[in-house]
Amino acid sequence: MHWDVPAKLRESMQYSLMAGGKRLRPVFVLLAAEALGGTERAAMPAACAIEMIHTYSLVHDDLPAMDNDDYRRGKPTNHKIYGEAMAILAGDGLLTHAFHVVSDAGRQGLLSPESAIAIVAELSQLAGASGMVGGQAADVLGEQGITSREELDYIHRHKTGDLIVFSLRAGGWAAGATEAQLEALTRFGYAIGLAFQIQDDILDVEGDEQKLGKAVNSDEKQQKVTYPFLIGMAASKQKVRDLTEDAKAAIAGGVIPHPESLMALADYLVKRDH
Amino acid sequence: MHWDVPAKLRESMQYSLMAGGKRLRPVFVLLAAEALGGTERAAMPAACAIEMIHTYSLVHDDLPAMDNDDYRRGKPTNHKIYGEAMAILAGDGLLTHAFHVVSDAGRQGLLSPESAIAIVAELSQLAGASGMVGGQAADVLGEQGITSREELDYIHRHKTGDLIVFSLRAGGWAAGATEAQLEALTRFGYAIGLAFQIQDDILDVEGDEQKLGKAVNSDEKQQKVTYPFLIGMAASKQKVRDLTEDAKAAIAGGVIPHPESLMALADYLVKRDH
Repeated sequence: MHWDVPAKLRESMQYSLMAGGKRLRPVFVLLAAEALGGTERAAMPAACAIEMIHTYSLVHDDLPAMDNDDYRRGKPTNHKIYGEAMAILAGDGLLTHAFHVVSDAGRQGLLSPESAIAIVAELSQLAGASGMVGGQAADVLGEQGITSREELDYIHRHKTGDLIVFSLRAGGWAAGATEAQLEALTRFGYAIGLAFQIQDDILDVEGDEQKLGKAVNSDEKQQKVTYPFLIGMAASKQKVRDLTEDAKAAIAGGVIPHPESLMALADYLVKRDH
Repeated sequence: MHWDVPAKLRESMQYSLMAGGKRLRPVFVLLAAEALGGTERAAMPAACAIEMIHTYSLVHDDLPAMDNDDYRRGKPTNHKIYGEAMAILAGDGLLTHAFHVVSDAGRQGLLSPESAIAIVAELSQLAGASGMVGGQAADVLGEQGITSREELDYIHRHKTGDLIVFSLRAGGWAAGATEAQLEALTRFGYAIGLAFQIQDDILDVEGDEQKLGKAVNSDEKQQKVTYPFLIGMAASKQKVRDLTEDAKAAIAGGVIPHPESLMALADYLVKRDH
């Protein structure tokens, strides 16, 4: 089959996919595979897929009907350049292509059919209505009045945590992980995911606008409920440190043969200023 | 893992999924499997997946930024009831869940891992930027001036044909089809898909508003280019008849053991009045 993608649609998809960012999720996929002695070649399809899913979610979240953001990573958002219709379709196209990249790797033998199916099944659950999409829906609905830590944790877990956990597990699947290893990567992922989100909330209050590429205090202006708002700044910072130690403990002790790079990434994330 | 989908999101997804319609695509999956002697049980996950994909595409196409439709199948469109943000998310959730249903069937042993991966790979290609999403993008872009039959065929092929072809091939995969059988189902699907789309255009001009569940002449009001507009009504009707015969010929002659139900469906579609 040949791939004839309308030029404007392709351009719109590439604009957001190539807009920069930390590439945190694909890095997690590759480091998790490496931590288990797997190859980059087998881990790459899932690494690309997760970046496509992450990018699609940003394109849709930025839409006027959702967060209505004009800038993302210091550049105009997708719909500001290509219009709303093309931004919706670019998101749909990226989401759909993520599943193609992984399943095609399964057909070509880069991944075993079992690993490819496991990655598709987990990605489609964690990115879906009970995962990331559900988190975004709760966020949209909750702007009419979230009050509790429990609700905030639910949103963070599904908006950010789920995809980080998936990234780690996908790297694990690509490297032939055992159940115990997948479990350790999952615990690491949920702890580091929540730490990452709280750190984002902290940076939104204290950060440097230029480094962040978005307006400081934008959450407060939109009256979003955040950790610093709920428990205070000092307690939020302590929470980030505690979660980072929990994360490192989950992959220590021998269950993961080479956990050093993952631990270093955890330390980097807690110290970042953007 | 447990499934905690926010109630409003679940309601919005179910509203459109359960809004009725012909269920044409899942019927194609089930009949293709039956035509090859396969089981309904193995074909059902792909049948559900294709209906979710079809429904998500309608929800997104109806959005104000796209076709801006207030009614679909005689009911208010998703965003008229749940708002634009929830309609975008409901579409995203349905699209993502389609891949989950098939991959999960592969993990549970309802489908072989190879068949599940093939179905995910084909669905993600045909529904994506080089398939259905590409067709919708071309449609959006083309409203600024399509003129040729070639462009119109490209749009019809990708907006409607691709998913019908997928449905037939997915039923084939679920029933363990040979290459020659998949090829015959593909030829049947592209012919019947184009016939179906032209018949839709004809009904848009001549049909009964109440049976259609949408406004007659809505394409003309939106100045969309259609087959009746380009080649006239009589030639359009002849084209539908010719394509239906081509479709039936593709699965005749023994390559498909039990083609009768598929042929009957082809005849039904060309004679339908809604």
